Amino acid sequence: MHLPQWIAAWVLLLHGCAADQPPQAASTRTDVRNCSTDPPYLPPTATNTTARLAALRGTMQAHGIHAYIVPSTDAHLSEYIAERDSRLGWLTGFTGSAGTGVVTQDKAALWTDSRYWTQAERQLDCNWELQRTTWIESIGLWIVEAVPVGGNISLDPFLFSIDTWNSYSQALHSSGRTLLPIETNLVDQAWGDQRPPPPSSEIYSLPAAFTGSSWQEKVAGIRQQMEQHVRQPTAVLLSGLEETAWLFNLRGDDIPYTPVFYSYTLLTNTSISLFVDKLRLTAAAQLSLWADCPGPLCVELQDYGQARDHLRLYAHGNVTIWLGTQYTTYGLYGVIPQEKLLEDSYSPVMLAKAVKNVKEQEMLRAAHVRDAVAVIQYLLWLEKMVPQGQVDEFSGAQHIDTLRQAQEHSHGPSFQSISASGLNAALAHYSPSNRSSRKLSVDEMYLLDSGGQYLDGTTDITRTVHWGVPTPLQKEAYTRVLMGNIDLSRLVFPPNTAGRVVESFARRALWDVGLNYGHGTGHGIGNFLSVHEWPVGFQSNNVPLTAGMFTSIEPGYYQDGEFGIRIEDVALVVEAHTKHQSGEEPFLTFEVVSLVPYDRNLIDLSLLSPEQIRYLNTYYETIRARVGPELQRQQLEEEYHWLQRSTEPFPLGSAATTATATTGMLALTPFLSTLLIGLQA
Amino acid sequence: MHLPQWIAAWVLLLHGCAADQPPQAASTRTDVRNCSTDPPYLPPTATNTTARLAALRGTMQAHGIHAYIVPSTDAHLSEYIAERDSRLGWLTGFTGSAGTGVVTQDKAALWTDSRYWTQAERQLDCNWELQRTTWIESIGLWIVEAVPVGGNISLDPFLFSIDTWNSYSQALHSSGRTLLPIETNLVDQAWGDQRPPPPSSEIYSLPAAFTGSSWQEKVAGIRQQMEQHVRQPTAVLLSGLEETAWLFNLRGDDIPYTPVFYSYTLLTNTSISLFVDKLRLTAAAQLSLWADCPGPLCVELQDYGQARDHLRLYAHGNVTIWLGTQYTTYGLYGVIPQEKLLEDSYSPVMLAKAVKNVKEQEMLRAAHVRDAVAVIQYLLWLEKMVPQGQVDEFSGAQHIDTLRQAQEHSHGPSFQSISASGLNAALAHYSPSNRSSRKLSVDEMYLLDSGGQYLDGTTDITRTVHWGVPTPLQKEAYTRVLMGNIDLSRLVFPPNTAGRVVESFARRALWDVGLNYGHGTGHGIGNFLSVHEWPVGFQSNNVPLTAGMFTSIEPGYYQDGEFGIRIEDVALVVEAHTKHQSGEEPFLTFEVVSLVPYDRNLIDLSLLSPEQIRYLNTYYETIRARVGPELQRQQLEEEYHWLQRSTEPFPLGSAATTATATTGMLALTPFLSTLLIGLQA
Repeated sequence: MHLPQWIAAWVLLLHGCAADQPPQAASTRTDVRNCSTDPPYLPPTATNTTARLAALRGTMQAHGIHAYIVPSTDAHLSEYIAERDSRLGWLTGFTGSAGTGVVTQDKAALWTDSRYWTQAERQLDCNWELQRTTWIESIGLWIVEAVPVGGNISLDPFLFSIDTWNSYSQALHSSGRTLLPIETNLVDQAWGDQRPPPPSSEIYSLPAAFTGSSWQEKVAGIRQQMEQHVRQPTAVLLSGLEETAWLFNLRGDDIPYTPVFYSYTLLTNTSISLFVDKLRLTAAAQLSLWADCPGPLCVELQDYGQARDHLRLYAHGNVTIWLGTQYTTYGLYGVIPQEKLLEDSYSPVMLAKAVKNVKEQEMLRAAHVRDAVAVIQYLLWLEKMVPQGQVDEFSGAQHIDTLRQAQEHSHGPSFQSISASGLNAALAHYSPSNRSSRKLSVDEMYLLDSGGQYLDGTTDITRTVHWGVPTPLQKEAYTRVLMGNIDLSRLVFPPNTAGRVVESFARRALWDVGLNYGHGTGHGIGNFLSVHEWPVGFQSNNVPLTAGMFTSIEPGYYQDGEFGIRIEDVALVVEAHTKHQSGEEPFLTFEVVSLVPYDRNLIDLSLLSPEQIRYLNTYYETIRARVGPELQRQQLEEEYHWLQRSTEPFPLGSAATTATATTGMLALTPFLSTLLIGLQA
Repeated sequence: MHLPQWIAAWVLLLHGCAADQPPQAASTRTDVRNCSTDPPYLPPTATNTTARLAALRGTMQAHGIHAYIVPSTDAHLSEYIAERDSRLGWLTGFTGSAGTGVVTQDKAALWTDSRYWTQAERQLDCNWELQRTTWIESIGLWIVEAVPVGGNISLDPFLFSIDTWNSYSQALHSSGRTLLPIETNLVDQAWGDQRPPPPSSEIYSLPAAFTGSSWQEKVAGIRQQMEQHVRQPTAVLLSGLEETAWLFNLRGDDIPYTPVFYSYTLLTNTSISLFVDKLRLTAAAQLSLWADCPGPLCVELQDYGQARDHLRLYAHGNVTIWLGTQYTTYGLYGVIPQEKLLEDSYSPVMLAKAVKNVKEQEMLRAAHVRDAVAVIQYLLWLEKMVPQGQVDEFSGAQHIDTLRQAQEHSHGPSFQSISASGLNAALAHYSPSNRSSRKLSVDEMYLLDSGGQYLDGTTDITRTVHWGVPTPLQKEAYTRVLMGNIDLSRLVFPPNTAGRVVESFARRALWDVGLNYGHGTGHGIGNFLSVHEWPVGFQSNNVPLTAGMFTSIEPGYYQDGEFGIRIEDVALVVEAHTKHQSGEEPFLTFEVVSLVPYDRNLIDLSLLSPEQIRYLNTYYETIRARVGPELQRQQLEEEYHWLQRSTEPFPLGSAATTATATTGMLALTPFLSTLLIGLQA
């Protein structure tokens, strides 16, 4: 699936290309606001924020605050958040997943990245300035202009990571303004009883069939790391919701698309404290956690709201607390004395979770086989329905959800499907709605980026198709995106290689002809957890690739106002079998576990090298071997035959060497002679 | 040329492979020390440091210092240093280019990286522990063990960058020991009148024919950047010796291999202060600097020793001083109040110097043509002399120096040649000496990594050759190193791409079969300046590649105890002509300016793709076109014919497609049919 803003920002920076442009002059459009007319023009999608801003300003005044910073995340720095945490959305009307709002007594501004500029102009009213950047320095400059010297700038310390806090602190450093954390959230005060209540749904244990190892084994592994660490930490603090869910093999439904629940964990060398609404735990879950009580493997359940006080108390002792700065808020971090901190970017739980064991790998593979069945059903359905003009982006997205839901162990989609036809696919973050949905057509390309949650794994796959006659550029761009996908997927690389130093292999075929894409190349993925699972991937802040990690590989190409292409597979990092071996550990490569063929209609075989074609044919053999029997088991005969047709081996003779040699006939003749001599010999 | 330690450390970290192993058990060898026998065994290459250490400990006692840290660099953080700055070398006997010594009253230790472990065991006496790491944390731990709480740890603040100072500060943080900068250098005190005197040679202006633009134009360009900067700096501080030399088009001979001179510059918006031994400036140089006096383009000459006091005085005003932290010492940095600092990693002069203008590009190209003549002469000479057993590593290195010296505008070598035969080439940093030099043989591979200083440019090239029958592994490894060189050289990439995200293209052909190399892939290079010119290159701390930059491209392969391969060319970043254009700026690629053919005896053509062969043939055409006429002009007829032979186009028919297709004959037949049909049509 497409990557979140903090990744995209990095990629835009690195590759110096912005995927989106500012929207065209607002005056000519009715879908976006126009604040320069009198009265201002607001589209029906905009929210009236006057009363909300007044309420917030009231609470600000009561606290003596001159500017208040509102982020888009929750207290666990989650990517997807619950409705009750959508403070920025409530305050501004803007529902994009990444942004920052700042409110003073007479001004209000929203910062967001290029993916969301159009959406913001559709959703904001004229109380809000839109700032087209996400740099904290820019926010700091705006605040310094808006707030006089001596003023107080405030934020909720439980909604900002340590690093983000430090960036604000530095941006306002020696400006004469004070950055003041206030533990009472002022937006929540203004929101009042309109704010959605906390979730009350069950928190349940994963059945043993769907866990890679018992939670006791996981705890023992983390404690062993603590013992072996040179700093000898006495405890590990977990703030990320996936960390606690993974560690205890528990799941919940507090957050859309990601089966996690509000919680913190403090795992010490002698005890385990799980901060959670204990009334929501199923009886089986409680039994599992208490199986070894009393003792070091007894999980003490504490109130979710007690996490900070408990941590503060614990930190009074002769202790060292290990945490990952990327997922810990300043609010928690701040209660631990500096000399008792052991900081890494990611907690040892985050890193352990990233490397799947053999059983977890098998489960993810199995989930991808069933997921492939649903996607294949969908592609065949489109082939039949689109020519009849019966499908639009929204009904398509609904249909793929339904097909996945019918698969065994399904637990809904892993994110909101990106179902985009024609020019909509060129928008990097497009999702259709019931209100505005383009009809699919044999004359346009169609992109579906979607995924499922299954008890045994999380999936994420993108396929782009064309049912008619693609333009030469569409075909060339698609083929080059595919070449990039293949080149990275078949890469052999040394152990401990960082993703960022190999992701260009997914771009080179595009670069060769002056094309590129403005987003990241991939991200980790969980076992019935997050579809974007850090810290695996190809970005600068990802950890080195290790056997057992799963990552998406998803190059693309976007022609503004015309079409968009992305080809995304999930791949497992595996040991490679190389001719030589240098160093003690074997080299690595990828095993692609997404099992859906690409669109033959869009492949220009003459661009592919023989190695790429060979790779593709081998991949198609794998698809047939793994998905074919499952289609038959599910008695999907038509789909089975579609799969056979779609995975026919490609002829090697069409490979790039012929095509390029033909462009220089002089070169062809000695080449051919050698071939003939080789055959005669 | 091979990369310095701070780069190598990064690469070792990144790729997780150490090129060198610890030396074998000392007891079996006579070339390294053995401190565990009684009396200890010292080879003749070791230096007796007892008296030197006693002298240093005396000065430490006089200053109340319990541990003193001695680095390997000078006050300008130069890579190559003058003899009088070789404080670590004098104190320890160790002459490697990278290391850190720490001395207490009863202990002494040297930290260095794997390239130098063997050399250190040959040169240190038993007063010194050898620490096989360069991490400052490790130095800090050692110090904390060696120095009791309350002790003073000291260093010369003019020999440490801000970042390094901060690392020591952090390593000793809250340890109860004090880190105390002392401006008097204690090693210099101990060294006394044995320390070499300051240089007295001339500092001269480059003739206009060898400058890219006048120094006034360069100053105007930097001042324009100051004006346009959002922080509006009032001055730029230059500490790197190359920065001042480049800015004023001046050169000197204070440092081996690099034509620079001791100096600092403070360039303000209204004045220019050059801190230098003014008596050493030639009359022409003085005239050039004073041509526009009085006025903002008048260069005020001040004593070299006055730089810090002048800077301190200047910093009293309402000023903002722009500097690059990578080349500024803590001694200078510390006199500027924090709020008056504008810090970047590199000064604007460093960045301006990195992008060569058209004239500078032409000069560098021309220098490389003459340099190619010298290297071609050398390769031909080796072909004739090696079979007679007449050449050893040292005499070879002397001969290439002599050949370069005979070329027009020559100004000596740009670094000490790495002339390494057989297993010696597997040592990453080997240079032969008169005393120990292996004979070149037709049965071994030979690696020459060398370069020249010319008034119009600096060169750096590595060729590896074999005059007999290479082993299959040698041939395969050489070919794959060459494929890596080609793949990176012919890469097309977007503007603003960082070198670190493309350097893997130089490794992939090796990775494919489980091989790799443990050093960086390239570095910037100057116009008659440093052979390692920062901040250009492929490392994590390099700036994005921009048209006009020159970088080396130098993959390699090293088989421990057997042979070593490196193929290094210098390449210019140029605009690419792509089929499509996305974004506003054109994509980029490389133009290789090193012009010496590779060893045909070592190339396995069947591994190369048709594209790689085509690239190679085009490169060889360029070599013929540029170097051929120069060889004829110099009446080097034999060399001319050697060049023609060595640059014969390679037949495309031998390309990888044939070889790989032959391994799967089934695939060959349809391929051939298509070819035939294509020909008949």
